[in-house]
Amino acid sequence: MPEVRVEEAKRFMEDSLKAVGAPEKEAKAHAALLLHADLTGHFSHGMNRLELYINDIKSGATNAAATPVILKESAATAWVDGCDGLGATVGNFCMELAIRKAREAGVGIVSVKRCNHFGMAGWWAQKAQSEGFIGMAFTNSSPVMVPTRAKHSAMGTNPISMCAPADDGDSLLVDMASTAVAIGKIEVQIHKGEPIPDGWALGPDGKPTTDAQLAFDTGRLLPLGGFEKTSGYKGYALSSLVEVLCSGLSGSKATYNIRSWALDSEEGPPNLGQCFVAIDPNCFAPGFGQRIADCLCHWRGMEPVDPTLPVLVPGDKERSNAENTTKKGCITYAKGQVDALNIMANRLHIKPVEIL
Amino acid sequence: MPEVRVEEAKRFMEDSLKAVGAPEKEAKAHAALLLHADLTGHFSHGMNRLELYINDIKSGATNAAATPVILKESAATAWVDGCDGLGATVGNFCMELAIRKAREAGVGIVSVKRCNHFGMAGWWAQKAQSEGFIGMAFTNSSPVMVPTRAKHSAMGTNPISMCAPADDGDSLLVDMASTAVAIGKIEVQIHKGEPIPDGWALGPDGKPTTDAQLAFDTGRLLPLGGFEKTSGYKGYALSSLVEVLCSGLSGSKATYNIRSWALDSEEGPPNLGQCFVAIDPNCFAPGFGQRIADCLCHWRGMEPVDPTLPVLVPGDKERSNAENTTKKGCITYAKGQVDALNIMANRLHIKPVEIL
Repeated sequence: MPEVRVEEAKRFMEDSLKAVGAPEKEAKAHAALLLHADLTGHFSHGMNRLELYINDIKSGATNAAATPVILKESAATAWVDGCDGLGATVGNFCMELAIRKAREAGVGIVSVKRCNHFGMAGWWAQKAQSEGFIGMAFTNSSPVMVPTRAKHSAMGTNPISMCAPADDGDSLLVDMASTAVAIGKIEVQIHKGEPIPDGWALGPDGKPTTDAQLAFDTGRLLPLGGFEKTSGYKGYALSSLVEVLCSGLSGSKATYNIRSWALDSEEGPPNLGQCFVAIDPNCFAPGFGQRIADCLCHWRGMEPVDPTLPVLVPGDKERSNAENTTKKGCITYAKGQVDALNIMANRLHIKPVEIL
Repeated sequence: MPEVRVEEAKRFMEDSLKAVGAPEKEAKAHAALLLHADLTGHFSHGMNRLELYINDIKSGATNAAATPVILKESAATAWVDGCDGLGATVGNFCMELAIRKAREAGVGIVSVKRCNHFGMAGWWAQKAQSEGFIGMAFTNSSPVMVPTRAKHSAMGTNPISMCAPADDGDSLLVDMASTAVAIGKIEVQIHKGEPIPDGWALGPDGKPTTDAQLAFDTGRLLPLGGFEKTSGYKGYALSSLVEVLCSGLSGSKATYNIRSWALDSEEGPPNLGQCFVAIDPNCFAPGFGQRIADCLCHWRGMEPVDPTLPVLVPGDKERSNAENTTKKGCITYAKGQVDALNIMANRLHIKPVEIL
């Protein structure tokens, strides 16, 4: 499998984005967002998606030079028009605004319409955490999830994220789709030639399937919890909660109206809705960071069922992946992915990805 | 099974609470909270728990005459000491405060320490919704949930609730424990003499069990999602998110330190943490209520897999139960529950529950 230096992956993504007209600053910000996904091991949200972003810029669905506009604000809230900007452009604008509100009012909630995909939700929550705030970020997305009892998809993966700072540089990072699994996990099973567990997806007849390829082609993911008897309606409820904060507040498209995200899409801007929250823990009981650190310490120290599988806290896996990859200095990509990117590089007249 | 008029159930709960020293206003508020659970069919959170609340007042764990105190506040936040007051006392105080903040700043977040159990989380979210706000409420609770990979419990059921107003009096109500199921559902299986599905709970060896009695006795519920391969770590993550908003912000006990809730508890006040949020949708895009109504309409109108099981939206079941029970005018309780309550009535020197 091809290995690519971290700096080279970054360079390639920046070059690609600039080649289709993204300003330097926005290209850098968006490349950083995608690179973070690859560093933390969430390849489905990293360079793997670069071509989708590129094509959205070329088709005019994304305006890479857009600057978001505040449409309405109060002491602790803002309603923003993302103006079809790049995910990182809109995310940075909105989370910085939420943080500014939180500095003044204790909390900031920013809901934004006319968005494109903003990568890993947790990246945005971490942005607030890195400045000492509790961050939360939410987005709606194309319909791929079946509401409990329904035959077809109507909800997005609608992720929920939260990052809370703990003492000594530690943190708690929640970043989860409200589906049982992300589509990417089904692809992994296809590549391994293995079935998917019961409770991940439905087939075209609305019945459960364990056939990975069929599940992928059908695109009907079950909500977190799976079937009704194992409380799948809770995942559906979480997805609806995200919908309230995203399309409900912002006036973007609701999930069931959002176009699918494909390389050949010509349906124009997706008009996603997103929501960014920052909370200042200093407005509450003193010692927040210590309390979170105590929780992390307690959970990590618990006796595991299997001694070879230690108890982790949300975010540990990502942190550990990022540390290892950064230390190694290079990222391992699938060969097919690099080949596809180099075909794109040729089209864009940029230097191809340099493999180690 | 004994049938009790709605008014009589209310009278009995108010009398019981007043008999142990709750002021009239607080007794009425707390009875209304528990009655709501019975009306909506969530008997585990209704009169079924009355004796626990009564005993907590008698033991001094709950101060039924307490008035919560604001310890710190900003434009959009408040940190509150619940002073070990009754769940309804603290809930009303904090949600009213959150709504007041939301009226002025667009959002209000109130985190409160030294709380007792506040019944159904959704009741508090609905309180904000009934005044035109998006309401959210969270609480931590005794450790009954196993973090993914751990052998023992350390997390609470830590519920998440949100209620959003929709046009024409409709609403979306999310109210869910972050466990796969509530303990009460395991009790139901015991009473039916049936096993529990795989993915609900662990046995004492840390292995999955389908034995309802063993699961109940062991008290190790799996997080929403169940096992690791079906994304149980997401339910664990949700529970940790609730912990941040509750004990993290308020300085209450963290779940792993919270005493169990039992009739004979002599361990003093539980010092739970709770968090109440109100958001003014008018601070965002116009037409919020219509957009939520459109979502509800779309989801309810979807083709179901089984034509006899229509697609519901979060809160439909509760609304329909409450309408039916209110129309009937009486609630059906388990005989054992009414017998136990009447033994308590005798001790408290109040009029027993009148059965139809």
